[in-house]
Amino acid sequence: MPAKITLAHGSGGGMSSRLIADVFYDAFGTDGAKANDAAVLSLAGGKLAFTTDSFVVSPLFFPGGNIGKLAFCGTVNDLATAGAKPVALAASFIIEEGLELEELRLIARTMGELAAETGIPIVTGDTKVVEKGSADKVFITTSGVGIVPGELNYHPGRIAPGDAIIVSGTIGDHGYCITALREGIAIKSNVTSDCQPLHTMVSSLSSLGDGVHAVRDATRGGVGTVLNEWAAQAGQEIVISEGLLPVLDEVRGGCGMLGLEPLYLANEGKMLFAVSAGLADRALSILRQHPAGRDAAVIGRVNPGEPRLLLETEWGTRRIVPVPVGEILPRIC
Amino acid sequence: MPAKITLAHGSGGGMSSRLIADVFYDAFGTDGAKANDAAVLSLAGGKLAFTTDSFVVSPLFFPGGNIGKLAFCGTVNDLATAGAKPVALAASFIIEEGLELEELRLIARTMGELAAETGIPIVTGDTKVVEKGSADKVFITTSGVGIVPGELNYHPGRIAPGDAIIVSGTIGDHGYCITALREGIAIKSNVTSDCQPLHTMVSSLSSLGDGVHAVRDATRGGVGTVLNEWAAQAGQEIVISEGLLPVLDEVRGGCGMLGLEPLYLANEGKMLFAVSAGLADRALSILRQHPAGRDAAVIGRVNPGEPRLLLETEWGTRRIVPVPVGEILPRIC
Repeated sequence: MPAKITLAHGSGGGMSSRLIADVFYDAFGTDGAKANDAAVLSLAGGKLAFTTDSFVVSPLFFPGGNIGKLAFCGTVNDLATAGAKPVALAASFIIEEGLELEELRLIARTMGELAAETGIPIVTGDTKVVEKGSADKVFITTSGVGIVPGELNYHPGRIAPGDAIIVSGTIGDHGYCITALREGIAIKSNVTSDCQPLHTMVSSLSSLGDGVHAVRDATRGGVGTVLNEWAAQAGQEIVISEGLLPVLDEVRGGCGMLGLEPLYLANEGKMLFAVSAGLADRALSILRQHPAGRDAAVIGRVNPGEPRLLLETEWGTRRIVPVPVGEILPRIC
Repeated sequence: MPAKITLAHGSGGGMSSRLIADVFYDAFGTDGAKANDAAVLSLAGGKLAFTTDSFVVSPLFFPGGNIGKLAFCGTVNDLATAGAKPVALAASFIIEEGLELEELRLIARTMGELAAETGIPIVTGDTKVVEKGSADKVFITTSGVGIVPGELNYHPGRIAPGDAIIVSGTIGDHGYCITALREGIAIKSNVTSDCQPLHTMVSSLSSLGDGVHAVRDATRGGVGTVLNEWAAQAGQEIVISEGLLPVLDEVRGGCGMLGLEPLYLANEGKMLFAVSAGLADRALSILRQHPAGRDAAVIGRVNPGEPRLLLETEWGTRRIVPVPVGEILPRIC
């Protein structure tokens, strides 16, 4: 096998088979003899969650992860937002001719290790290769299926006045980490991406039943974008308090220097929850018992009013946090 | 909305929302108010088929279809190879900055029309935008879920000596169409891509029960590659007859001129079946009643013997059809 990806690796012929067997079957623990165009899974029935996301992050490797970890966790977390127990993932790779095979292997291995750790197998996939210059190294699209327990229905439409808004930890870590890396100040940065699977943290809240109204991972566009969408979908006002937002000191300082707003920075391991006011304390204590939720905090509340997101500053003033317009940070995930 | 895609369309902010609402929700008939990160589907239980494929075809538009049609049909057909009734698709778009919005709209509309015609909705999706030069116009990854009737188990491992090999129509049309277009002889070509959904054709064979052993769409790598894989997975010899292969006259002539082998050309609307010998005639007559199977033909048989694919020429000689090595036709699908 040559050390770099060639167009022949995408031909569908012998080189493709060898690439798939050597890199992906090996990393994902796939039994090649049983592989087929579509995976078949047995289900007990009920509600199926189904999601997909493409990942184009640049650079491919960063402190705390790589594109494969992002792709795995991103889709697991999207399933979790529906309250689903993830059952299986699919992974499709678009590879630029010339990619170092070793890079691809590292990425696939990361995904395989996450599959083993979480018990969520990667059951089907695809590989395409395009000419040098027609893609940037590798793009990954992961899709996932999961089972939603019958009684759960997390949806922003269920957000109601009085709800507490909870975030599961510090905000902006992933976006700041990638930006610092690109800006070449990585050497001074200790911030790593927060990229991690959150499905067990979300399911730990299932004991609160339908007191949990909405769940969303605050990825591209950040907490500010998700809460704007929630305000619009719920038709209510959401007010968050600057002083309650968990932000790492280094992220806060770096954002000041770079002119970035942590509220708009991507997170890859943080969830937002809208929870009935009376259950907020219980939700917090449950979340904080989970390694991914140690820094969980109530950051705001839902008020009756026009659909908008307000930020209460530490001086007591209020300003509208708009939906961001224009380019924030391209290829952050 | 500007006429070309900008990085801001991929920001996750306001421009992203407008792009998604304007291009995709509109084309796919999505109720934006109900949209969420993961789609939730109700299932009766049983076996779930799950598949994914990326599409990178160049050019985006060709006689008989476009990348959106390929992406829709390719995933529907992969579900069909498992005997599944397709339930829903997911579609994820990686878009190059600068793409004409109108091209994206045409592609999305084609997918939406196919969803309406087939009754298979596109229930979830994602959009990423990368800088000019980091992708080539647009890549689409579609994933699909479907329900497999309990009794069906199509798998190459079930192929047995005596089985008839059936192809559902003329071979190489898609590969030839794209090649002709690229070689600039399109003006002389009347061959259109065979890209079409095949799930209803496959399910029409369900009355044959487990007499149908394996089903596969002969896409990238063509009939020659699939039958080599089948021979290897079944551990048997497959012999096909040159004189029985349905090939359009123009494809045969053009392949001669271009030095191509129709057996290795991609098909996007043709299925291969391995069927118990005694059921071959019934299978053929059922297939020929379906618009996509009018030219269905028995092209060969399975023999006990070492795993390989043989071609019987019209002169009665036999040669091995090898697994193709090296680049065949990049970005054919």
